[in-house]
Amino acid sequence: MHDALRAYIEKYASDKISDFDFELVKKAFIIKRYKKGQYLLQEGEVCKYSAFILKGSMRQYSIDVKGVEHIIHFGIENWWVGDRESSTMLTPSKYNIDTIEDTEVLLITTEDLQKLGDKLPSIGKMINTMNQRNFIASQKRIHDALSLTAEERYLELSKNHPNFLQRFPQTMLASYLGITAETYSRIRKKALK
Amino acid sequence: MHDALRAYIEKYASDKISDFDFELVKKAFIIKRYKKGQYLLQEGEVCKYSAFILKGSMRQYSIDVKGVEHIIHFGIENWWVGDRESSTMLTPSKYNIDTIEDTEVLLITTEDLQKLGDKLPSIGKMINTMNQRNFIASQKRIHDALSLTAEERYLELSKNHPNFLQRFPQTMLASYLGITAETYSRIRKKALK
Repeated sequence: MHDALRAYIEKYASDKISDFDFELVKKAFIIKRYKKGQYLLQEGEVCKYSAFILKGSMRQYSIDVKGVEHIIHFGIENWWVGDRESSTMLTPSKYNIDTIEDTEVLLITTEDLQKLGDKLPSIGKMINTMNQRNFIASQKRIHDALSLTAEERYLELSKNHPNFLQRFPQTMLASYLGITAETYSRIRKKALK
Repeated sequence: MHDALRAYIEKYASDKISDFDFELVKKAFIIKRYKKGQYLLQEGEVCKYSAFILKGSMRQYSIDVKGVEHIIHFGIENWWVGDRESSTMLTPSKYNIDTIEDTEVLLITTEDLQKLGDKLPSIGKMINTMNQRNFIASQKRIHDALSLTAEERYLELSKNHPNFLQRFPQTMLASYLGITAETYSRIRKKALK
């Protein structure tokens, strides 16, 4: 059950973690199963948990005044989800996080993750690597949103995350790319030719 | 000369740094002065340095195939600039970083910053806080780019960074918001009414 988490820690800390230390890590997490469509976080709540996905997928999105959903992140197996801004600043979240499929996660509170990071060098290093990678991925997403056409954004997504295109509904993929479902459908048809 | 850097470290490490440790920090930095329009980084280079701005301002931008500039970040006094993706992954940068005004910075190589972070807990903590804040700011920028109208993005910018509106040319502000200079001008006039 915790093997994927252990592999993740060792990969991003670039170091082995001892059995003794990993027992501490395991104790800080709880396993939770969500049915498709259930929420990890709802807009207006303070985000208490970070979730490491063992199985399934999630999305983080805001809903604008017109009721339109804007997906800013997807999460799949071995990814973390959570609203860092809310959990760090203890502010109400602007986002919802729910499951796209039946999903199994390991949950840890922000406080416990921070404590583990202070106590265990491998977890501290993992958190730093995650923050750095998250920032790099976010910067790329800003760059793409600002400077690529809708078609170029579709092609980038199909290159970097081809599995997303199979796995998620077209309406969600369109929202993630910041385009309408109609535009998505047109671009997809053109790309498949 | 290094007072601003010291204040920055102590603020983001939430801790004092000893005179002894700060001497190590000072030794790792070099001071550099740029005339307006000079480059810290040009597209295709690997980014070697992070720059802490003492005076002046910079912008990080890409240029698309049509020759249009897309500004993804501004930097002013007490901010850091640099392309984290390039300096971490050692890949050629997609970005240019140049100065908007005559600018004075403290430069440190990525390697030296990492070494300092490993050696001095206050620098390690500062780097973590910076990574976290950068990620949060980037996430907000993604959210705004995807879900806000051009007018709402202008209002967010004028709320969060009113000094930017006075300090930077309208063409650059338009680029930062992902809109044309004409749209920027129209929105600005409407907002000033």
